[in-house]
Amino acid sequence: MAGNTFGTLFKLTTFGESHGVAIGGVLDGCPSGLKLDMQAIQADMDRRKPGQSAIVTQRKEPDTVEFYSGIFEGETTGTPIGFAIHNTNQKSHDYSHIKDSYRPSHADYVYDKKYGIRDYRGGGRSSARETASRVVAGAIAKQFLKGTSIQAYVSQVGTLKLEKNYADLDLNLTEKNIVRCPDPVTAAKMEDYIKAVRKEGDTVGGVISCVIKNTPIGLGEPVFDKLHAELGKAMLSINAVKGFEFGSGFAGVSMKGSEHNDQFNTDGTTKTNYSGGIQGGISNGMDIYFKVAFKPVATIIQAYETIDKAGNKVQTKGKGRHDPCVVPRAVPIVEAMAALVLADFALLNRNVKAQ
Amino acid sequence: MAGNTFGTLFKLTTFGESHGVAIGGVLDGCPSGLKLDMQAIQADMDRRKPGQSAIVTQRKEPDTVEFYSGIFEGETTGTPIGFAIHNTNQKSHDYSHIKDSYRPSHADYVYDKKYGIRDYRGGGRSSARETASRVVAGAIAKQFLKGTSIQAYVSQVGTLKLEKNYADLDLNLTEKNIVRCPDPVTAAKMEDYIKAVRKEGDTVGGVISCVIKNTPIGLGEPVFDKLHAELGKAMLSINAVKGFEFGSGFAGVSMKGSEHNDQFNTDGTTKTNYSGGIQGGISNGMDIYFKVAFKPVATIIQAYETIDKAGNKVQTKGKGRHDPCVVPRAVPIVEAMAALVLADFALLNRNVKAQ
Amino acid sequence: MAGNTFGTLFKLTTFGESHGVAIGGVLDGCPSGLKLDMQAIQADMDRRKPGQSAIVTQRKEPDTVEFYSGIFEGETTGTPIGFAIHNTNQKSHDYSHIKDSYRPSHADYVYDKKYGIRDYRGGGRSSARETASRVVAGAIAKQFLKGTSIQAYVSQVGTLKLEKNYADLDLNLTEKNIVRCPDPVTAAKMEDYIKAVRKEGDTVGGVISCVIKNTPIGLGEPVFDKLHAELGKAMLSINAVKGFEFGSGFAGVSMKGSEHNDQFNTDGTTKTNYSGGIQGGISNGMDIYFKVAFKPVATIIQAYETIDKAGNKVQTKGKGRHDPCVVPRAVPIVEAMAALVLADFALLNRNVKAQ
Amino acid sequence: MAGNTFGTLFKLTTFGESHGVAIGGVLDGCPSGLKLDMQAIQADMDRRKPGQSAIVTQRKEPDTVEFYSGIFEGETTGTPIGFAIHNTNQKSHDYSHIKDSYRPSHADYVYDKKYGIRDYRGGGRSSARETASRVVAGAIAKQFLKGTSIQAYVSQVGTLKLEKNYADLDLNLTEKNIVRCPDPVTAAKMEDYIKAVRKEGDTVGGVISCVIKNTPIGLGEPVFDKLHAELGKAMLSINAVKGFEFGSGFAGVSMKGSEHNDQFNTDGTTKTNYSGGIQGGISNGMDIYFKVAFKPVATIIQAYETIDKAGNKVQTKGKGRHDPCVVPRAVPIVEAMAALVLADFALLNRNVKAQ
Repeated sequence: MAGNTFGTLFKLTTFGESHGVAIGGVLDGCPSGLKLDMQAIQADMDRRKPGQSAIVTQRKEPDTVEFYSGIFEGETTGTPIGFAIHNTNQKSHDYSHIKDSYRPSHADYVYDKKYGIRDYRGGGRSSARETASRVVAGAIAKQFLKGTSIQAYVSQVGTLKLEKNYADLDLNLTEKNIVRCPDPVTAAKMEDYIKAVRKEGDTVGGVISCVIKNTPIGLGEPVFDKLHAELGKAMLSINAVKGFEFGSGFAGVSMKGSEHNDQFNTDGTTKTNYSGGIQGGISNGMDIYFKVAFKPVATIIQAYETIDKAGNKVQTKGKGRHDPCVVPRAVPIVEAMAALVLADFALLNRNVKAQ
Repeated sequence: MAGNTFGTLFKLTTFGESHGVAIGGVLDGCPSGLKLDMQAIQADMDRRKPGQSAIVTQRKEPDTVEFYSGIFEGETTGTPIGFAIHNTNQKSHDYSHIKDSYRPSHADYVYDKKYGIRDYRGGGRSSARETASRVVAGAIAKQFLKGTSIQAYVSQVGTLKLEKNYADLDLNLTEKNIVRCPDPVTAAKMEDYIKAVRKEGDTVGGVISCVIKNTPIGLGEPVFDKLHAELGKAMLSINAVKGFEFGSGFAGVSMKGSEHNDQFNTDGTTKTNYSGGIQGGISNGMDIYFKVAFKPVATIIQAYETIDKAGNKVQTKGKGRHDPCVVPRAVPIVEAMAALVLADFALLNRNVKAQ
Repeated sequence: MAGNTFGTLFKLTTFGESHGVAIGGVLDGCPSGLKLDMQAIQADMDRRKPGQSAIVTQRKEPDTVEFYSGIFEGETTGTPIGFAIHNTNQKSHDYSHIKDSYRPSHADYVYDKKYGIRDYRGGGRSSARETASRVVAGAIAKQFLKGTSIQAYVSQVGTLKLEKNYADLDLNLTEKNIVRCPDPVTAAKMEDYIKAVRKEGDTVGGVISCVIKNTPIGLGEPVFDKLHAELGKAMLSINAVKGFEFGSGFAGVSMKGSEHNDQFNTDGTTKTNYSGGIQGGISNGMDIYFKVAFKPVATIIQAYETIDKAGNKVQTKGKGRHDPCVVPRAVPIVEAMAALVLADFALLNRNVKAQ
Repeated sequence: MAGNTFGTLFKLTTFGESHGVAIGGVLDGCPSGLKLDMQAIQADMDRRKPGQSAIVTQRKEPDTVEFYSGIFEGETTGTPIGFAIHNTNQKSHDYSHIKDSYRPSHADYVYDKKYGIRDYRGGGRSSARETASRVVAGAIAKQFLKGTSIQAYVSQVGTLKLEKNYADLDLNLTEKNIVRCPDPVTAAKMEDYIKAVRKEGDTVGGVISCVIKNTPIGLGEPVFDKLHAELGKAMLSINAVKGFEFGSGFAGVSMKGSEHNDQFNTDGTTKTNYSGGIQGGISNGMDIYFKVAFKPVATIIQAYETIDKAGNKVQTKGKGRHDPCVVPRAVPIVEAMAALVLADFALLNRNVKAQ
């Protein structure tokens, strides 16, 4: 399995299965001399961790990070930051219902076909548990990106949409409710809806919006590694993501050029921002904003029919403690991946001019 | 400028500005012993080239590829394939209207800020002319991917949407009209609409859908380099793209898990395909399908106000021969990028098992 | 700090300082379905570990590897193999003699200049302790390279040279003595010499030779990533290495082409092997052999004068438990790095032909 | 064929066979705003080109570079620099003597085994002609590395050794004779010797020494990508190279630590420089110096026996215009590769500190 490394200069490599000894990673390329706020790192971990509220999975995992290297007397040394999060929830579950059969819309089937072997305990490497390592590295990236703010929030759950534009919201309210929707009225509806869906043993999808302010002009590389192309890849690499759009997105298709073009102010800012803060793949200093679509979680607590390795039909039933809707816990993951993309481009951008 | 290389093993590096001597690239990692159909390569080039129909830019560029290496007696040798497309349209245009001023929603401003210098002739490196090199490499990738078909088509122009599902279309009709929409009735409306928009000197956006059939099971790497994450990055790296969704996409958000899960048939295929042929980032052998949103082209043939390098207001007017809508010519580009992604994963997939 | 990753497909990333919590790494790209002999891995660790004999450092570190992921029921799963080796020797030493001063021919000075901060405890990241992680990954690579044997041995200590060609030696004798020289008579002299040097508080250099048998034909990429270029880089990346030569090496310079050319036998083997098993950067199936030069260890247990951060002269004295000669413990490191190079090229070589 | 790219940020990708249409490359990542001296680039090309003197191959190739992109009004723009060197020497030679048989100590045999196909005209991709592209990119790298001087020279031909240390030589004399040895007396002997060897239809090896002055402190990454490891790889990637040593090299093995350690002066320079300007893989500001061993050229103008594809013995005879000794023309190649390594590390070093 290749593909466990993200980034060119600010580079995260992760390892670990959901029910192995530990998950973790190595963050290579984080510059030296960065004084780390360790509590801020753990705070992001806590936003992602299971069991944090009534609308997420009730598994209990403290998700405490141990740092092994690269930090000396509270400061990064420029050497690789190795870290691990021990899995405390490894008790001998009963996996007989998934060991030999394939759960629909999970990765079980393709893993078996691709690798010929699979750690079937709880999803193994395909479990979203892997994203905890991304949150660790992303929290460090955020600290490196001093001055830039990255704020994600839930803007849709099922058919419940937050119709307001981000500029009309107080994003500081996002963490005030367990859904992580900055509009309290919509948040309450979403919470009720998720609870209702959970009762049915079902799941539902959602959308996370993300806004990045105070990005320096010039981030992104103009051809294959456009800023929005890397952001898109980063978001699509998160479990359950089905779509990505930035700036005017899919709605921009219906506009004419004369409407869509962002006219300049004399200071280089633009009067409108359909570009979403990115022109030609490069940040222009305006707010970057994008949306990420998440499908309904595949694990449902209902009876269903599926097949086993031999292709026989099998009657089974989902069990365990799962998320009825992934977006509340995915908010810090979206932020973490955005931070990793920006940190990498911030470093790459140091190499642009001859002098 | 980094970021001019795409792929890990099947790897394309491109160079060239729209009005320089030549554009081109190096395709490294194409396996040896592939007998190339040179006419098929040129045919894809012709689908992208300017001047091909009444609804695209009327610039005349034959876009003839010269291969410099890597092909011997009609067969790839396994060595890098160097190629160039000479720019025949380099006559000394009048660029005074863009040399010192910044066109709205173009990359002019950010290039100047990032690099401190810019080849202002016709957009330089940020011109979509660069995509011709992608089409060359993509056409070779298609030939490498024997058995897999990659078919893109226009499914929306402005507000005109082709509402049919791809399975209800005859994709062989795509090339029968100049819009590249496989539904003749919709195609005719789109064509009229684009012509009307052009008359206004305006532009409009569009959506390209793409369907990939007969992909082997197992392509894609499960964490950061998921198949759909790389497809998304590939598409978002194309000029003017604002969004990407695959399978159920943004619409899938509103579904419940019990509806969205793709139940297995006993042969491992699935009864539905909301997953879009990809589970956990890995192809499952079902059709892969996705949509790509393109904004309206920024160059409009109308008077507008903008700023110059010094921040002064400037009155100017777009001129030249530009596309009123980018999607008809972008169809082969979408296919090319998809082919590059698949070819790379096909090679990576050879390294998965110990024996 | 970039540069903590080695390999393209069979890819090791390491982390850790000598006196931090742990060192370790992530081995990404190891194919699935490889049944691992865990004792063979620990056996290579034991060949490298401190305190193993009277002629190496007397520090006691068990160097026990903990595997965190990527191995399930004794078999690789194709997912990244995360591992750590906890540092058990972290007691609060007195580092006052090196905290603020720069040891000659160590990396102290350049680290401070480059990073502005340095984990001064025992050399931090520049300590050869980091190579333990390489031995773990190399031991896995050896198991992947079934059929290929990689045998390194000490061929010189100070001026004591083993003059015999590798073909005239029984390489199975290498591990029979603590110097790891397969000629018992020379080994005894080397052992005495190292002991004498240690008594003086001094150190001495050495040469390690390495022989690789039964390499498949075709490993290596012909231009920048020639097989011997990667082997050379791998060896030069080991602490204290000053030179690398393969096949006829520096002595080949004095030969004429008519002597040096390796004439073919009718089966494609060659009558001589001045090429060292590599032609044009690609293995030809003959034995690969090379030599690696190690300088005398910089830490000597003698009084010396040096400078502090402010540029003041400082009188100090080396202390602690150090190796008088690095080559006996470096033998498994040379093998490990060779194995990593070969494993990576073995995977790359799966991608060469179209069919 | 992978492995046609060199460098991480200052990154060269080359293409081309010796007797194809053209060779060339793409230099990606060269910073913007570098005013290029085009004559200096061609001057380095002329130092490498065939036919330049009586002791090199008498093929006539002007080796004129055409730049296609990345340079605008004499200055780099930060976009990829595409270039080609057309092969003017493509006349239909008689290759019957090598088409179906394998020349000893050439890459013919391994190419056929690896790729199943081979461009047999003049060595194809394995020809040293490919190094012309390296000289182009290296000449640009030299201009980027303002203030640093890189001077290579011939220090041995066959058994004729220049015994003086580089510090006792006037390196400005290197280009005063056709051997490129800065000691006129030794140069004359070397010239006579090479002529004598040529008369026999034979070839001989040589050594190139290289000295780099005024390198900033801090270049190189401390673990796998040590400065000397990358220099070693760079040199070993040049055709015919068999060995690399830096600083005290193989001779340093016999020294004791107490002799070999480079004691500091109070300004951070060292009294001796056995380290060769590199400590722990990082430049310390002292002169970097290293040696590169080249084997005798494999093509000799003598009758010899070899085998054909079917394994039959074949009597044949070398013909054509070949170098009797490769080192005089390889001097600019060694410099070019050193410049590429330093330019890449100079960029990487911009990313080290957080602020």
